[in-house]
Amino acid sequence: METALQTYLAENIPITTAMGIKVVIASPARVLLECPLEPNRNHRGTGFGGSIASIATLAGWAWIWVMMRERTVPPNIVISKSSIEYTHPVQASFSAELRPPSDAQIRSFIDSFDRRGSARIELKVDVLCQGEEAALFTGVFVAVKS
Amino acid sequence: METALQTYLAENIPITTAMGIKVVIASPARVLLECPLEPNRNHRGTGFGGSIASIATLAGWAWIWVMMRERTVPPNIVISKSSIEYTHPVQASFSAELRPPSDAQIRSFIDSFDRRGSARIELKVDVLCQGEEAALFTGVFVAVKS
Repeated sequence: METALQTYLAENIPITTAMGIKVVIASPARVLLECPLEPNRNHRGTGFGGSIASIATLAGWAWIWVMMRERTVPPNIVISKSSIEYTHPVQASFSAELRPPSDAQIRSFIDSFDRRGSARIELKVDVLCQGEEAALFTGVFVAVKS
Repeated sequence: METALQTYLAENIPITTAMGIKVVIASPARVLLECPLEPNRNHRGTGFGGSIASIATLAGWAWIWVMMRERTVPPNIVISKSSIEYTHPVQASFSAELRPPSDAQIRSFIDSFDRRGSARIELKVDVLCQGEEAALFTGVFVAVKS
Protein backbone atom coordinates (compact mmCIF):
# COMPACT_ATOMS: atom_id res chain seq x y z
CA MET A 1 0.00 0.00 0.00
CA GLU A 2 2.94 2.32 0.71
CA THR A 3 4.12 2.18 -2.93
CA ALA A 4 0.60 2.70 -4.28
CA LEU A 5 0.13 5.79 -2.11
CA GLN A 6 3.61 7.13 -2.92
CA THR A 7 2.86 6.85 -6.65
CA TYR A 8 -0.58 8.38 -6.24
CA LEU A 9 0.85 11.38 -4.37
CA ALA A 10 3.61 11.95 -6.93
CA GLU A 11 1.12 11.85 -9.82
CA ASN A 12 -1.72 13.78 -8.24
CA ILE A 13 -0.29 16.19 -5.65
CA PRO A 14 3.01 17.33 -7.23
CA ILE A 15 4.09 19.58 -4.36
CA THR A 16 4.60 16.39 -2.31
CA THR A 17 7.54 15.56 -4.61
CA ALA A 18 9.08 19.01 -4.09
CA MET A 19 8.64 18.52 -0.34
CA GLY A 20 10.31 15.09 -0.54
CA ILE A 21 7.44 13.36 1.23
CA LYS A 22 7.99 9.65 1.77
CA VAL A 23 5.22 7.23 2.67
CA VAL A 24 6.71 5.14 5.47
CA ILE A 25 3.58 3.29 6.64
CA ALA A 26 0.13 3.35 5.06
CA SER A 27 -2.41 0.95 6.51
CA PRO A 28 -5.87 1.39 8.06
CA ALA A 29 -4.19 0.90 11.45
CA ARG A 30 -1.31 3.35 10.95
CA VAL A 31 -0.27 6.15 8.62
CA LEU A 32 3.23 7.62 8.88
CA LEU A 33 4.67 10.11 6.40
CA GLU A 34 8.13 11.66 6.55
CA CYS A 35 10.02 14.47 4.85
CA PRO A 36 13.51 15.98 4.95
CA LEU A 37 14.15 19.40 6.43
CA GLU A 38 16.13 20.97 3.57
CA PRO A 39 13.34 21.61 0.99
CA ASN A 40 10.99 22.53 3.85
CA ARG A 41 13.23 24.86 5.81
CA ASN A 42 12.43 28.47 6.62
CA HIS A 43 14.48 31.61 7.21
CA ARG A 44 15.62 30.26 10.58
CA GLY A 45 16.76 26.91 9.21
CA THR A 46 13.86 25.17 10.96
CA GLY A 47 10.72 23.63 9.46
CA PHE A 48 8.43 26.01 7.54
CA GLY A 49 4.99 26.09 9.20
CA GLY A 50 3.24 25.67 5.85
CA SER A 51 5.14 22.45 5.12
CA ILE A 52 4.38 21.14 8.60
CA ALA A 53 0.66 21.84 8.05
CA SER A 54 0.90 20.22 4.59
CA ILE A 55 2.38 16.91 5.74
CA ALA A 56 -0.17 16.74 8.58
CA THR A 57 -3.03 17.42 6.15
CA LEU A 58 -1.72 14.65 3.91
CA ALA A 59 -1.50 12.16 6.78
CA GLY A 60 -5.19 12.68 7.59
CA TRP A 61 -6.22 12.54 3.95
CA ALA A 62 -4.05 9.45 3.34
CA TRP A 63 -5.67 7.49 6.13
CA ILE A 64 -9.13 7.88 4.58
CA TRP A 65 -7.68 7.10 1.14
CA VAL A 66 -6.08 3.89 2.43
CA MET A 67 -9.12 2.83 4.44
CA MET A 68 -11.63 3.36 1.63
CA ARG A 69 -9.47 2.34 -1.31
CA GLU A 70 -10.95 -1.14 -1.69
CA ARG A 71 -14.51 0.11 -1.99
CA THR A 72 -16.32 -0.33 -5.31
CA VAL A 73 -16.72 3.42 -5.62
CA PRO A 74 -13.76 5.18 -3.95
CA PRO A 75 -14.77 8.51 -2.43
CA ASN A 76 -13.60 12.01 -3.14
CA ILE A 77 -11.83 13.13 0.01
CA VAL A 78 -11.42 16.82 0.83
CA ILE A 79 -10.45 18.83 3.86
CA SER A 80 -13.09 21.15 5.29
CA LYS A 81 -11.15 22.91 8.04
CA SER A 82 -8.15 22.44 10.27
CA SER A 83 -6.15 23.90 13.08
CA ILE A 84 -2.55 23.41 14.09
CA GLU A 85 -0.48 24.28 17.11
CA TYR A 86 3.28 24.53 16.64
CA THR A 87 4.81 23.33 19.90
CA HIS A 88 8.55 23.00 19.10
CA PRO A 89 10.75 24.10 16.20
CA VAL A 90 11.59 21.33 13.73
CA GLN A 91 15.37 21.05 13.39
CA ALA A 92 15.76 17.88 11.30
CA SER A 93 13.64 15.62 9.09
CA PHE A 94 10.12 15.35 10.45
CA SER A 95 7.15 13.02 10.27
CA ALA A 96 3.38 13.11 10.55
CA GLU A 97 1.54 10.27 12.23
CA LEU A 98 -2.20 9.89 12.44
CA ARG A 99 -3.79 9.23 15.82
CA PRO A 100 -6.13 6.36 14.89
CA PRO A 101 -9.78 7.29 15.46
CA SER A 102 -11.89 5.14 17.77
CA ASP A 103 -13.82 2.18 16.34
CA ALA A 104 -17.07 4.07 17.06
CA GLN A 105 -15.85 7.09 15.07
CA ILE A 106 -14.86 4.89 12.14
CA ARG A 107 -18.18 3.00 12.20
CA SER A 108 -20.18 6.21 12.25
CA PHE A 109 -18.08 7.61 9.36
CA ILE A 110 -18.55 4.50 7.19
CA ASP A 111 -22.26 4.22 8.05
CA SER A 112 -22.89 7.82 7.08
CA PHE A 113 -20.93 7.38 3.84
CA ASP A 114 -22.91 4.25 2.91
CA ARG A 115 -26.32 5.64 3.82
CA ARG A 116 -26.03 9.27 2.74
CA GLY A 117 -23.20 9.21 0.22
CA SER A 118 -21.10 11.59 2.30
CA ALA A 119 -19.46 11.60 5.70
CA ARG A 120 -17.14 13.74 7.78
CA ILE A 121 -14.58 12.84 10.40
CA GLU A 122 -12.25 14.76 12.67
CA LEU A 123 -8.71 13.42 12.61
CA LYS A 124 -5.72 14.27 14.77
CA VAL A 125 -2.16 14.11 13.52
CA ASP A 126 1.07 14.46 15.48
CA VAL A 127 4.05 16.02 13.76
CA LEU A 128 7.22 14.64 15.28
CA CYS A 129 10.89 15.50 14.97
CA GLN A 130 13.67 13.48 16.59
CA GLY A 131 11.12 11.71 18.78
CA GLU A 132 9.58 14.93 20.13
CA GLU A 133 6.23 16.48 19.25
CA ALA A 134 6.65 19.52 17.03
CA ALA A 135 3.02 20.21 16.17
CA LEU A 136 -0.47 18.92 16.80
CA PHE A 137 -2.92 19.10 13.91
CA THR A 138 -6.69 18.60 13.91
CA GLY A 139 -8.53 18.40 10.61
CA VAL A 140 -12.11 17.78 9.56
CA PHE A 141 -12.22 15.71 6.37
CA VAL A 142 -15.20 15.01 4.15
CA ALA A 143 -15.63 11.96 1.93
CA VAL A 144 -18.22 12.13 -0.86
CA LYS A 145 -19.24 9.38 -3.27
CA SER A 146 -17.57 10.11 -6.58
CA MET B 1 9.84 46.00 -1.19
CA GLU B 2 8.20 43.36 -3.43
CA THR B 3 11.55 42.42 -5.00
CA ALA B 4 13.31 42.31 -1.63
CA LEU B 5 10.66 39.97 -0.21
CA GLN B 6 10.60 37.81 -3.34
CA THR B 7 14.39 37.34 -3.12
CA TYR B 8 14.23 36.68 0.62
CA LEU B 9 11.59 33.98 0.16
CA ALA B 10 13.49 32.27 -2.66
CA GLU B 11 16.71 32.20 -0.61
CA ASN B 12 15.24 31.31 2.76
CA ILE B 13 12.03 29.34 2.24
CA PRO B 14 12.78 27.22 -0.85
CA ILE B 15 9.36 25.53 -1.04
CA THR B 16 7.95 28.94 -2.06
CA THR B 17 9.87 28.59 -5.34
CA ALA B 18 8.42 25.11 -5.96
CA MET B 19 4.97 26.56 -5.23
CA GLY B 20 5.58 29.41 -7.67
CA ILE B 21 4.70 32.06 -5.11
CA LYS B 22 4.85 35.60 -6.45
CA VAL B 23 4.93 38.68 -4.25
CA VAL B 24 2.40 41.03 -5.87
CA ILE B 25 2.15 43.69 -3.15
CA ALA B 26 4.24 43.97 0.01
CA SER B 27 3.73 47.10 2.07
CA PRO B 28 2.70 47.77 5.68
CA ALA B 29 -0.75 48.68 4.32
CA ARG B 30 -1.23 45.65 2.07
CA VAL B 31 0.28 42.23 1.47
CA LEU B 32 -0.83 40.19 -1.54
CA LEU B 33 0.83 36.94 -2.63
CA GLU B 34 -0.20 34.80 -5.58
CA CYS B 35 0.55 31.33 -6.93
CA PRO B 36 -0.42 29.22 -9.93
CA LEU B 37 -2.65 26.18 -9.58
CA GLU B 38 -0.53 23.61 -11.44
CA PRO B 39 2.28 22.98 -8.90
CA ASN B 40 -0.28 23.24 -6.08
CA ARG B 41 -3.03 21.03 -7.47
CA ASN B 42 -4.41 17.96 -5.75
CA HIS B 43 -5.96 14.68 -6.94
CA ARG B 44 -9.12 16.53 -7.97
CA GLY B 45 -7.29 19.16 -10.02
CA THR B 46 -8.15 21.82 -7.43
CA GLY B 47 -5.88 23.58 -4.92
CA PHE B 48 -4.14 21.34 -2.37
CA GLY B 49 -5.20 22.32 1.15
CA GLY B 50 -1.60 22.31 2.37
CA SER B 51 -0.54 24.80 -0.31
CA ILE B 52 -3.50 27.03 0.52
CA ALA B 53 -2.50 26.98 4.21
CA SER B 54 1.12 27.66 3.20
CA ILE B 55 0.45 30.78 1.12
CA ALA B 56 -1.84 32.14 3.85
CA THR B 57 0.82 31.49 6.51
CA LEU B 58 3.34 33.33 4.33
CA ALA B 59 1.04 36.34 3.86
CA GLY B 60 0.75 36.79 7.62
CA TRP B 61 4.46 36.26 8.19
CA ALA B 62 5.34 38.62 5.30
CA TRP B 63 3.28 41.47 6.70
CA ILE B 64 5.27 41.44 9.97
CA TRP B 65 8.53 41.08 8.00
CA VAL B 66 7.67 44.11 5.85
CA MET B 67 6.44 46.20 8.75
CA MET B 68 9.45 45.56 10.98
CA ARG B 69 12.15 45.39 8.34
CA GLU B 70 13.47 48.91 8.90
CA ARG B 71 14.09 48.39 12.59
CA THR B 72 17.67 48.39 13.87
CA VAL B 73 17.27 44.82 15.09
CA PRO B 74 14.82 42.95 12.84
CA PRO B 75 12.82 40.34 14.78
CA ASN B 76 12.61 36.61 14.40
CA ILE B 77 9.05 35.92 13.32
CA VAL B 78 7.45 32.52 13.88
CA ILE B 79 3.95 31.13 13.75
CA SER B 80 2.51 29.81 17.00
CA LYS B 81 -0.83 28.39 15.86
CA SER B 82 -3.35 28.74 13.09
CA SER B 83 -6.70 27.61 11.82
CA ILE B 84 -8.15 27.58 8.34
CA GLU B 85 -11.58 27.04 6.89
CA TYR B 86 -11.78 25.92 3.27
CA THR B 87 -14.92 27.50 1.88
CA HIS B 88 -14.69 26.87 -1.89
CA PRO B 89 -12.48 24.70 -4.08
CA VAL B 90 -9.67 26.58 -5.82
CA GLN B 91 -9.89 26.00 -9.57
CA ALA B 92 -7.30 28.44 -10.93
CA SER B 93 -4.37 30.50 -9.68
CA PHE B 94 -5.04 31.79 -6.18
CA SER B 95 -3.92 34.57 -3.90
CA ALA B 96 -3.58 35.32 -0.22
CA GLU B 97 -4.34 38.79 1.09
CA LEU B 98 -3.85 39.96 4.63
CA ARG B 99 -6.74 41.71 6.40
CA PRO B 100 -4.87 44.70 7.86
CA PRO B 101 -5.00 44.69 11.67
CA SER B 102 -6.45 47.72 13.46
CA ASP B 103 -4.16 50.59 14.48
CA ALA B 104 -4.70 49.64 18.12
CA GLN B 105 -3.59 46.05 17.44
CA ILE B 106 -0.47 47.25 15.64
CA ARG B 107 0.38 49.73 18.41
CA SER B 108 0.01 47.11 21.11
CA PHE B 109 2.16 44.66 19.09
CA ILE B 110 4.98 47.19 18.56
CA ASP B 111 4.80 48.42 22.17
CA SER B 112 5.10 44.91 23.53
CA PHE B 113 8.00 44.15 21.17
CA ASP B 114 9.87 47.31 22.24
CA ARG B 115 9.25 46.90 25.95
CA ARG B 116 9.49 43.14 26.41
CA GLY B 117 11.48 42.01 23.38
CA SER B 118 8.65 39.84 22.15
CA ALA B 119 5.09 40.28 20.95
CA ARG B 120 2.27 38.26 19.45
CA ILE B 121 -0.49 39.21 17.06
CA GLU B 122 -3.45 37.44 15.51
CA LEU B 123 -3.68 37.98 11.76
CA LYS B 124 -6.44 37.07 9.34
CA VAL B 125 -5.76 36.20 5.70
CA ASP B 126 -8.25 35.67 2.89
CA VAL B 127 -7.39 33.18 0.19
CA LEU B 128 -9.10 34.20 -3.03
CA CYS B 129 -9.56 32.55 -6.40
CA GLN B 130 -11.16 34.28 -9.36
CA GLY B 131 -12.51 36.99 -7.07
CA GLU B 132 -14.21 34.57 -4.68
CA GLU B 133 -13.14 33.58 -1.19
CA ALA B 134 -11.68 30.07 -1.13
CA ALA B 135 -10.41 29.96 2.45
CA LEU B 136 -10.19 32.05 5.59
CA PHE B 137 -7.03 31.70 7.67
CA THR B 138 -6.33 32.94 11.19
CA GLY B 139 -2.80 32.72 12.55
CA VAL B 140 -1.08 33.81 15.74
CA PHE B 141 2.43 35.06 15.00
CA VAL B 142 5.21 35.80 17.46
CA ALA B 143 8.05 38.26 16.91
CA VAL B 144 11.12 37.96 19.14
CA LYS B 145 14.17 40.23 19.21
CA SER B 146 16.94 38.38 17.39
